Formats: sequence, C-alpha cells, structure tokens
Amino acid sequence: MANITKKVSWSSRADESASSASTGVGEGTPLLNGSEGPRFSRQHAGEGSVFQIGRLTTVELEEKMTADEDLIRAQTREIPHNEKLLSLKYEGLDYDNIENQLFLEEERRMSHMGFQCLEISRWVVCGLIGFLTGLIACFIDIAVENLAGLKYEVIKRNIENFTETGGLSISLILWGGFNAAVVMMGSILVAFFEPIAGGSGIPQIKCYLNGVKIPRVVRLKTLIVKVVGVICSVVGGLAVGKEGPMIHSGAVVAAGVSQGRSTSLKKDFKMFEYFRRDTEKRDFVSAGAAAGVSAAFGAPVGGVLFSLEEGASFWNQMLTWRIFFASMVSTFTLNFFLSVYNKKTGDLSNPGLINFGRFESESVEYYFYEIPLFIAMGALGGLLGALFNVLNYWLTIFRIRYVHRPCLQVMEAMLVAAVTATVSFTMIYFSNDCQPLAPENNEEYPLQLFCSDGEYNAMATAFFNTPERSVRSLFHNQPGSYNPLTLGLFTLTYFFLACWTYGLAVSAGVFIPSLLIGAAWGRLCGILLASFSSNSSLWADPGKYALIGAAAQLGGIVRMTLSLTVIMVEATGNVTYGLPIMLVLMTAKIVGDYFIEGLYDIHIKLQSVPFLHWEAPATSHWLTAREVMSSPVTCLNRIENVGTIVDTLSNTSTNHNGFPVVAHTLGNDEPGKLCGLILRSQLIVLLKHKVFVELARSRLTHRKLQLKDFRDAYPRFPPIQSIHVSQDERECMMDLTEFMNPTPYTVPQDTSLPRVFKLFRALGLRHLVVVDNENRVVGLVTRKDLARYHMGKHGLEELQLAQT
Amino acid sequence: MANITKKVSWSSRADESASSASTGVGEGTPLLNGSEGPRFSRQHAGEGSVFQIGRLTTVELEEKMTADEDLIRAQTREIPHNEKLLSLKYEGLDYDNIENQLFLEEERRMSHMGFQCLEISRWVVCGLIGFLTGLIACFIDIAVENLAGLKYEVIKRNIENFTETGGLSISLILWGGFNAAVVMMGSILVAFFEPIAGGSGIPQIKCYLNGVKIPRVVRLKTLIVKVVGVICSVVGGLAVGKEGPMIHSGAVVAAGVSQGRSTSLKKDFKMFEYFRRDTEKRDFVSAGAAAGVSAAFGAPVGGVLFSLEEGASFWNQMLTWRIFFASMVSTFTLNFFLSVYNKKTGDLSNPGLINFGRFESESVEYYFYEIPLFIAMGALGGLLGALFNVLNYWLTIFRIRYVHRPCLQVMEAMLVAAVTATVSFTMIYFSNDCQPLAPENNEEYPLQLFCSDGEYNAMATAFFNTPERSVRSLFHNQPGSYNPLTLGLFTLTYFFLACWTYGLAVSAGVFIPSLLIGAAWGRLCGILLASFSSNSSLWADPGKYALIGAAAQLGGIVRMTLSLTVIMVEATGNVTYGLPIMLVLMTAKIVGDYFIEGLYDIHIKLQSVPFLHWEAPATSHWLTAREVMSSPVTCLNRIENVGTIVDTLSNTSTNHNGFPVVAHTLGNDEPGKLCGLILRSQLIVLLKHKVFVELARSRLTHRKLQLKDFRDAYPRFPPIQSIHVSQDERECMMDLTEFMNPTPYTVPQDTSLPRVFKLFRALGLRHLVVVDNENRVVGLVTRKDLARYHMGKHGLEELQLAQT
Repeated sequence: MANITKKVSWSSRADESASSASTGVGEGTPLLNGSEGPRFSRQHAGEGSVFQIGRLTTVELEEKMTADEDLIRAQTREIPHNEKLLSLKYEGLDYDNIENQLFLEEERRMSHMGFQCLEISRWVVCGLIGFLTGLIACFIDIAVENLAGLKYEVIKRNIENFTETGGLSISLILWGGFNAAVVMMGSILVAFFEPIAGGSGIPQIKCYLNGVKIPRVVRLKTLIVKVVGVICSVVGGLAVGKEGPMIHSGAVVAAGVSQGRSTSLKKDFKMFEYFRRDTEKRDFVSAGAAAGVSAAFGAPVGGVLFSLEEGASFWNQMLTWRIFFASMVSTFTLNFFLSVYNKKTGDLSNPGLINFGRFESESVEYYFYEIPLFIAMGALGGLLGALFNVLNYWLTIFRIRYVHRPCLQVMEAMLVAAVTATVSFTMIYFSNDCQPLAPENNEEYPLQLFCSDGEYNAMATAFFNTPERSVRSLFHNQPGSYNPLTLGLFTLTYFFLACWTYGLAVSAGVFIPSLLIGAAWGRLCGILLASFSSNSSLWADPGKYALIGAAAQLGGIVRMTLSLTVIMVEATGNVTYGLPIMLVLMTAKIVGDYFIEGLYDIHIKLQSVPFLHWEAPATSHWLTAREVMSSPVTCLNRIENVGTIVDTLSNTSTNHNGFPVVAHTLGNDEPGKLCGLILRSQLIVLLKHKVFVELARSRLTHRKLQLKDFRDAYPRFPPIQSIHVSQDERECMMDLTEFMNPTPYTVPQDTSLPRVFKLFRALGLRHLVVVDNENRVVGLVTRKDLARYHMGKHGLEELQLAQT
Repeated sequence: MANITKKVSWSSRADESASSASTGVGEGTPLLNGSEGPRFSRQHAGEGSVFQIGRLTTVELEEKMTADEDLIRAQTREIPHNEKLLSLKYEGLDYDNIENQLFLEEERRMSHMGFQCLEISRWVVCGLIGFLTGLIACFIDIAVENLAGLKYEVIKRNIENFTETGGLSISLILWGGFNAAVVMMGSILVAFFEPIAGGSGIPQIKCYLNGVKIPRVVRLKTLIVKVVGVICSVVGGLAVGKEGPMIHSGAVVAAGVSQGRSTSLKKDFKMFEYFRRDTEKRDFVSAGAAAGVSAAFGAPVGGVLFSLEEGASFWNQMLTWRIFFASMVSTFTLNFFLSVYNKKTGDLSNPGLINFGRFESESVEYYFYEIPLFIAMGALGGLLGALFNVLNYWLTIFRIRYVHRPCLQVMEAMLVAAVTATVSFTMIYFSNDCQPLAPENNEEYPLQLFCSDGEYNAMATAFFNTPERSVRSLFHNQPGSYNPLTLGLFTLTYFFLACWTYGLAVSAGVFIPSLLIGAAWGRLCGILLASFSSNSSLWADPGKYALIGAAAQLGGIVRMTLSLTVIMVEATGNVTYGLPIMLVLMTAKIVGDYFIEGLYDIHIKLQSVPFLHWEAPATSHWLTAREVMSSPVTCLNRIENVGTIVDTLSNTSTNHNGFPVVAHTLGNDEPGKLCGLILRSQLIVLLKHKVFVELARSRLTHRKLQLKDFRDAYPRFPPIQSIHVSQDERECMMDLTEFMNPTPYTVPQDTSLPRVFKLFRALGLRHLVVVDNENRVVGLVTRKDLARYHMGKHGLEELQLAQT
C-alpha cells in the first residue's frame, strides 16, 4: 500500500497558508516560528490604520514588542517595496461549490418546491439586508447631524462671544480640543479593538468579493466599531466622509443576516443553513455592499454596478435583480425613516446620506463647446488624483514603518484632528471674503467673524460645516458666493489635510473629501472662465463646474468607472450630465493611471494581497500551467491513513488548504490519477467527528456525517492542534470518497496562463489541478500562483511570495 | 496504425449541424435529403415574419414549393408544439478562444506596445460603432418625422375639407390606402429580401450574444432592410415603435465596423484583422446593441445593462467601460445632429429617439401610501402582458402554419395597416371627447372633427399621431385632457392592434406600443383614483400613473428587469421614480411569469433555438455529464489521413463542428487519449490550402499556414463540397498539431449537469470534451445537450432534438 503523499518543502511557495485553521489563537497569528514570524507580523500590526489584517491581539503584541524590539528596528528596512510582494498569509475563499456526494444527495432529495422556497428565502434575506443597512445609515446620519450640529452651535456661540471680548485663542483651543477628544474615542476603538474597521473598508470588501479571505472583516464587532468610529470621525471634524464605511457596514450586515446566526453572540437562529458556504455568502455580501452604496449616495443602480464592477465575475440575472432589490430597499428605508425624522413622513424623493441637491434642468444644460473644457478638467483631476495617491502612498509606507503601535496611531489621529481644526480656524480668521447674508441663504452655521453685520465669512461655509454640506454649498450657492482666493486656499489646504487623513486608524471614507476638493477647484475654474470670457452669461453657473471638478477629482483618486458615473448621476438626480461626467471620469482615469494606480489598489498592493484582476497580463501567453503551478503537490489517497492526514495538516511548512485525492496506485514515485479534491476544512471536520474506519474490525464506528456538520463548523473551523487523535486512532483509515469533490476542474500542463486565469477567475476557483495526459496530478494552481504575474511599467513582472 | 475514428449514427442527436460549412447554397439550407429536409425548411420559411432564420432563398423556395406542396400540407400538423423542440440547424459560436500554436506564437511575438495598440483600436472601433449607430438613429428619426408629418398634414387637411362638405369615407380610404401602400413597401422588403430583418431583432441579438449563430443576422443587407423597413412601418401608422430595431441596427453596425471589411460589398480595408473571430466580434456586437438602446431611449447606462443582462456572461471591467463609451457616443451623436437639425445646435440635453419629456421634480413626488397602488398596477400590467403574450403566441403558431408565403405575409401586413387606419378613424369619428384648444397646448396635429371651434378631439391625440408623441401626451397633458371613456376604448383597441401587429413581416419594435397601452390604462387609473378619492388634490397628476402603467405593461410583456428600470429612469430624466418603477416591473414579472414567458423568449422557443439560460435547472443535479453528453464521438488522429477527414466532413448524417483529436494509440476499440480539439472550419481551411504531408516523399509540400488564412476565411467558410481533393491527395496525411486547440476544457463523466452548465456558460464554450479517468475521450457536450433540459411547470423537462 504505497502512499504517494509527498512531503514537499517549498517554504517560499506553499499553496495557501492555513493560518486560521492550524493555529489556535487568532486568525492572523503567523505560523512560522523563528524570527521571520514575529518580524513580519509586527510589521503588519503597524499597518492597522490603513488596512489592518490579521494582526496580533494587543496583549500578545505588547509581549512580543519588548522582546523583538531591536530585531524589528534592524530589519524593517529589509522590505522597503513591499508592494512587490505577495503575502502567503491570506487564504482563498471557495467560490466554487464543493459538489461532493453529500451535497449532491441533498440537492437530489430536494423537490422543485424546495428550490422555490430557497429562492424566496434569498429574496427575504436581501430585503432584510437592505432594510438593516438603511437603518444603520439612518442611525449614522441622525447621530452625525445632531452631534455635529451641537458642536458647531457651541463653537459658533463661543467664537461670537470671544470675537467681541477678544481672546479667540480660547475658541481655537475649544475647537481643537473637542475635535481631538472625539477623534480619540473613534481611534481608540479602531486601533485597539478592531483594526480591520479602519479606513473606508472598500479595499477589504473588494478583496473579499475577489475571493480573498480577510480575517474578521465581516464580523459583528467590526460593524459596531465601524459605525461608532465613523460617527466620531465626522463629528471630530476630520476631512472624511461617512459614505465609504456604509459599504463595509452593508457587507457585514449581509454576511450576518444570510448566515442566520451570530458566532460572536453565540446565537444560532437555525435559519438559512443552506447559505452557510462561501458561494452563497459572497452573493449576499455583494448585495450588502450594493445596499451600502445605495444608502450612502441614494444610488441603487450605482450600488448594483459597484458590486458588479468590484466583485462579481459571473453575471447572473437573478442575482443582479436581488442585489438591485436590496439596494432599493436600503434607499427606501433610509429615505422613509429620514422623512419621519424630518417630520415630512412619506416624502420619499430625497434619497441618500449625501445628495448633491437638485440640479434643475434649466440651469444644468451644457453646450457642445464646453466638452473640451470638461475634458481638460478631467485631466487636471487625474493629475491631482495621482498626486494625492503618490503622497498617500509615501505616507502609508511611512506609517507601516514607524507608526505601527496602536497608541501611536491614536496620537496621530488626534494630531490630525487638532491640526485640521487649527488650519480651519486660521483660514477662517485670515479670510476676508465677506458675503452678504441673504435671507434665502440656507447656511446653517454662518460665521460673521470680522465681517460686518449682515454678512458672513465665505471661508467658514467651506470649513465650518460637515463636508457634505460644504459640497452642497459649492454646487448650489449663487454665483459670487465665494471669491477665487478663498476657493484656491481652501483647495490647497483641504487637499493636504484629506491626504494626511486617509489611512489614519479611524473609520472613515475618502469619497466626500475628494468631492469637496474637486468641487472647490471646479468652482474656481468656473469663476475664472467667467471672468476671462467676454460674454459672462455663458458661464453663469459655477455650480456646474463644481460638479465636474468633483467628478474629476474623485475619479482621479479612486479610478472607478461605470459605477462612479452612475453614482454621480443618481446623486445629482439628473441624467443630463451623464455624458460629461463619463468623459471626465474617463480622462481622469487615463491620466491618473499613467502615473500611479487608484487609491484602493495601492492599499491592496501594500498589503500584499493576492488580488486577481480581470484578465491575465496581455503579454503572458508564453507562460503555461507548467511554469505557473506549484509542484510537487501533497496528495491524499482515497482511503487514507488517519496518521498521515494529521501529519499533513500539522506540517507547518506546507500549509496547504486543498489536497488532490488520487486513486490508489501501485507505482512508487509515479503521481496518482486524480479522483477528487478535498479541503483542509473538510478534513478537520472529519477528524473532529472521528469518521474513521477501523480496519481490524472492519466496521464503521462513526455515525453518518451530514452536510449539517460541515455547515455548523463553517466558517470558523478549529485548528488541527485542537483536535486530539490518539495513537490507536492514527492507525485507522479514513474514507474520503463521500466528502471530496469528485469532479474538480483540471487543466493540462500546456495550458497558457491567460487560459488558466480565465477558468480560475470566471468560476471563482481556489484550487485548480494540473494533470498530465494520463490524468495524473502534476501540480496545483492557486490564487497566489496567478496573482504573482502582473503588468509593470516595463512588461511582465513577477511578484515574490513571502511569509509575511 | 489503427484509426479509432467512429462512424456514429445519431441522426437525432448530432453534435451541431454544420449547414453553413457543408452546403453550398445558403447558410440555412437543410442538409438532409428526403422528405424531412424540405418539410421543415418550408415550415421555417413561413416563420419569416416573426423571427426568420435560415430560410431558403426565394428562388429555391418557389421551386421547392410546387414540388412539395402536398407533402407540406399533409405534414405541417405533425409538430404542433414546436416550442418543445430544439432545432439542430443552429450552429454555435466560438466564444472560447482557440488557443492553438499559431495563435500562441502570434501572441508571443506581440510586444507590450502591440497590445496597447490593439486596446486603442478597440476603443476606436467602439467610438465608430457609437457614432454610426447614432447617425442611423438620427436618419430614422428625421425620416419618420418628416414623412409622418407630411402624411398627417395631408390627411388632416383632407378630413377638415370633407368634414365640411361631407363624404368622410373618402378621407378614410385615403388614410387606409396610404398606410397600406407604405406598409406594403416595408413588408415586401422584409418578406422577399431579408426575412431576418423582420420584427424587432431583439430575440435574434439575444441569441447571437448567447452564442447561437443566426445566419445573416449581422449583414449589411439586413441593416438596410431593417432601417428602410422600420421607417415604412412607423410612417404606415402601424402600432409599432422604431426603438427595438435600433438595437439590431447597432449590432449590425458593430459586426461590420469591427471586422474592417464588408463581405457583401467585397471590400476589405485590411484593418482590425485581429478582431476577426467570434470572441472579439461578440464583444463589439454587445457594444453595438448597447449603442442601439442608448440611441433609442437616450439611456446609455440602460444600454450597457441591456447588453449585460441579455448577453455577456463574463463581466469584464474594460469591456463594460468600452460598451459604455459606445453608448455614450451614440446618444451624443444622435443628440448633436438632432440639435443641428432642430436649429438649436449644441443643445445636448434632450437625448434619445423617444424621450418621455421632462418630469419636473415638483410634480413627480410620490408618497408612501401610493406604493401599494403602484404594486397593484404592476400586477395588472403582468396580467395584461401575459394576455398579450398568450394571444401573440397563438397568433404566431397560426402564422407559422398558414401564413408562410412571402406574398401572404405582405398581404397580412397591408391588411393590418388598413384595419389600423379604419379603427383609428372610427374611434375618432365616434368619440365625443372634445377638449378646449388651449394656447399652450402643443399638439402638433389637433383634429377638430365634430368638435366646436377652439376644441380638438382628444381621441385623435392618441390615434392621429406617431406613437411616440401619443405616449408623451399621455404622460404630460394637463389633468382633464382625456375623459375616461376615451382612454378605456383606446386601451382596448390598441391592445389588440399591437398584439396583431407584432410578428408581421415588417421591421418594427414592441416597446412603444407597450408603453402606449400601459400609459393609457395607467392614466385611466389615475383619473379613476382621483374621482373616487375625496381629496382630489392628492391624486392630481394622472401623468404619474400613466408612467407607472407604461412601465407595468412593458414589463409584463418583455419581462426585462434591471435594464428596463434604468432605461425608464433615464428616459424620464429623473431618478425619483426608480423605486416605484422597480417595484412595478418586479411585480409585473412575477405575475406574468406565472402564466407565460416573456415575448422574446416565446419567439426564441418557437424557433427551437438552443438558448442557454443563466443557470441549469435547479432540480437537475441528478444528471451527470455521462447522461448529457453525445456519444460516441468522431475523433481524429493527431496526424490524420486526408481521405478520412474529407469523408468525416462530408458525412451528412454526422454534421459535427468540432472533433476531439486523440493521441495515436495501438488499441483498437479503446477510445484515445485526448490531445486537442479541432473545428470543422479549421479543417476546411487546411483542406483548401492543401496542408498535406506526402508520406512517400516525406516532405512538406505546402507553405506554412498563417493565422491570417483563417481570418480571411472567417466567418463564411466554404462548404466541404466546394473543395476538391484528388484521389492522390486523399492518400496524404495532415498534421493537425499546429492547428488544433491543444488544451480544450474537459470534465470527468461524473460531473453534475449544473457544474457542466456553469463551466460551459461562464466560458462561452461550444464543445466540452468529457473524458474518463485515463483522459480518454468518451463524449462531447455541446450547447444542444445542455439546452435540452429545462424547467417546466411540473419539474424538469427534456426537449426533443429535431432536424428542422
């Protein structure tokens, strides 16, 4: 009984690290012992603010910190360009159904009616996702409005008092102190309790939908920290928006609702058990993300497109329609509850957390000769966006190296909050842009500050306000509300503030600050055009240019395309601007891509996530599966010795997550004929339930395992170390036939990389077995093997895999 | 040297009929001799009006007609339910790249720069597609406006004359005669010259994008007939729209432009040769269809979603963005030229062939309590849509049986035109709904007709107008412009007229008539609600209900979902109605689906097209590849005898299009090990270029074949009969190694149907090889094998394959 299992030793090209399943402590705790492990883990712990994945719990961190301090200092500079690395610590998700015998039996037992019930429950779940996401958005909105309102009222009264009596520095201290205190709260939550809740969450959700498992990203705790954190950030006056985090929130809601249980709360509602697998969960998470976008921007169609653009690879009509349903319900819920809150119950025509206000048809017409101007603005947006991204990239590298302790992160956040307040105050103070306080003017907190009575300070409209309101003012205030100098200074300062802010250990989005920067310079463009042109009536509306500028700046930073166009159109509530917005976004993307990638992609790369793009690099046809695959592969026999399985799973140097199952052959070194594929998680469940065949007595000692057992264990499978297998049991055999996927997708060795890539990506695979022409296993292609190849400036580049 | 090629005899389950490649005359001429062939072909020739595919040329038809007349009469009733059949005459398209050595060599030679140039040319092509589609839309619009304007002016003056002098019957004859004459022209074009240009073309484009080759669907001749035909239909006063045909037109433009040549005009521009394969062409056709929708409804985003919903299975970001670009350019072009034509050069804010007019924000607000009403209207729309579809289904079956001669088709079209005019006239004549002619009223052709001076006949607003204008009037006319009886009668008559009209041998769409019917009963609902309610101001705007009714009716008929929502929203130019429109469309779909499928799906089914839906039927897990596949398979050796190849290709009983290539084995009956897949079209090109190895002299007598040779032959490969192979040459061998696809996708025999389906659909395959665990070929899965299984009312049903 020859065992063809091979003990491989590719420390640098292990299949997929199985950190969560094979270690007991935290999902992200590194596996390797020795100096490598802690070093890299420490480094990642420091990235928490940006995009924090799998860091150690704080207690552990502190312990290790004292020990490894010197080592870290000496070695952090070893990987200065870690966007050229792919981390091995990320696992993949199984977006391909594991069609084993158990599953097929269940499916075959199910009646037509059963499938219809399932379909109905999918709709119910999507409705719930939309409803809850809408509620959360509503909660955030009301909380922010009230708290920020309170803050600005207090400070305004204070400033007005001190303007008369002198001693404005006390106002400044009050403002800065208040901001820093609120931001500190949010930052502590994020930095100490749930680092993954930092930032906008969009890169994380992108990765999740792409098929990369980001630990803790869809947990209840993450949601709570995210929601409270974003309220603190916005109320704390940072240059951030509350829209990005809604997408993450929606995704968490979706992951929670669709599973019918909460692992954190230890509550299982025994519902939706069928949905407890990665494929179904992903579909719901798509819906949740869409619902989030929809609630944030009042853009249900934009939400659907966002989900599709960022996530789905296989377009399915029913799924899309369900996603759309979730989006609609979410907007509707938010809309309805806000209308109740605003005492206009039932008026549903004002959707979204942000809306750009009504652009009425008369004022928004544009003419043919304006198109080149719009394109030029798009190019400017692309340039500024690229500058923003480059600065933020450097800043992030700096943060990864030097600002990795949670307390440092909190201090940095407080510093930014204080500086933001100070800069705002200074700008308002030195501004002499006084505008008459018209009765129809709807500024909520007009600051008089050195202006005559009946006038207000225009700089304050931009700075002394929540960013959402500022954007709206820039779009809709009468021509002449701002003078060019104000706008220029505002753009300049806000640009750097926003750039500094993104990546702090706070929960916050970059959409609104981008829009605000763009709206400011866009309006400036409009004003300048009007002053240069002889016929000023042609350029009457600077608000139009503010809108175009906002689109250009946002496009230049995030580089989203179709979905962003639709989101902008839906947020303006007017389709007339579709074409110019599209042209502008396209120009911004082309110009920006020339210099550097989009902000989210930068952060994904800096985290060394094995992210799969839409297509393989164009010039990769000379690579074949043979070169790409990992080989040799650890295979298991169809009926395998328990001891071998335990040893294979426990072997920390080969942390595979999937094992080809081969038919029993007599040959020795010859690879076996493929007959299935089994996952680490399945083996763990089998071991836990002791599904052993005692050969001596030749009888089955275990009860028949059900699909339910696998579902109950999903998604947090215990690590192998926690499973005790006695010496006797090690001698038993395990029959994998029923549990393995008997029909894994395979490719021949000569398949070109683009072809392998297409199969892998289109079907959302995690493991693709490479076979020779006798159907013998010769290799395994995983996500990392494909993500390694990417198109650099000078052609195809290969990233290094590293145990980070 | 054993040849394991098998002569199979599955007359009822041949792989894919290779009609176009193996017969000389017409792409759709049936292969089989004997009574079967002509019988079915005749029957299909009769379906031209609805969805005419692969009919004989008229000359051939006439010849056969005299001969087979009796036979046909006797046998037509044999297949009364031919929606339960799958026709074998349709070929598949190769949406999976054929990655053979030639292709890989070319790709490997290409530099990074080369790929960038390709990418740029893709954008250029998409821009051109958009531009040309926009121009065509513009041409249609201007032609229709002018001709219809002329017609209505003449008739109006005539009616006014005769109203005074008596003898209105002359007006009626003038009207009816004019309509019939114009429709006759359009119908003759369609019925005699290009039957595939009949109808809206949407089902045909759906099939094309799905991967079914519909002969002649994207030819220049089709485009010309389509465009002229649609002008005739609309000017002829039929209950049709000019919007549907735009989608088909866009697709033809795309197929033409992207190939850089016109086979019909025998002109090769030597451009875009890289795009001469099905995969690339499909992408451009998607863009063309989107551009068509975009031009028709001024809905660029709706166009993209239409393309994706109906066509693409693999969502690719860059592709989508290009499609969007084409859509935008198309709207923009139309917009710009129309603005020039309307003497308002540069005013781009009025997009689309139809637009629903501006719904201003104040008038369009809706309230929470209206939602249930909207849903009820959606249900009504679903019911009426189902009724429409059922009636049209019966009518189509009737037409397939009895109205299959082109001259009969023309006569039917003329009859419908005359009846439409008569009914309209009668309705206007007997209507006593006189409305004051307000100065702000913008009716273009107000008919006084029995009304006092200063009044006009409201019924005439609906009937005496192009349908587009009627829709707009129903949406926007002041409350009180129509009385309920007028609307009720109009709905009733127009419903039956539209139902009768769809499926005639004219080029025309069903969108606008559906909208018109829906708008009429929707407005009626609004008026009735207002009259029942105590507080009439709440229900002040019947236009709102007209819009909802229009959405409900259209949704009930065509059952499109996401894309239709977006199209409606973009056409109204206001996003406020997003939610109600979605709810209405969803309700209409659910209610309608309970009774019968959507109109397009009905017509696809009646044509027995092997159309693949999004997913395999839910209850099909008990089927495996073993049951589904066609077997045994005709295989070829890697180095094959030319005679064998010619015989295999010429064998009319096994019209395969793809042949697995197997390694040379010594066994006799044992299936060979798979080493590639080669297509009939490739073999044809090889035979044509005499790529033979003369074994005796052991040298190569042919020049090295290039990819260009295959591209030049694409897509109209000559039939095998036209290639002469001498007896000497039959003895030669052919080396297929370089030309076959060495890495076809395979599945094991035990793979479940849903899994096979997913692979096939996601990658757009045409042939999927089934192998055993030794990698030996045991079967082949093609489109028809998968399309056979579908979900009926009582569970899984299996369609019969037939040589139609």
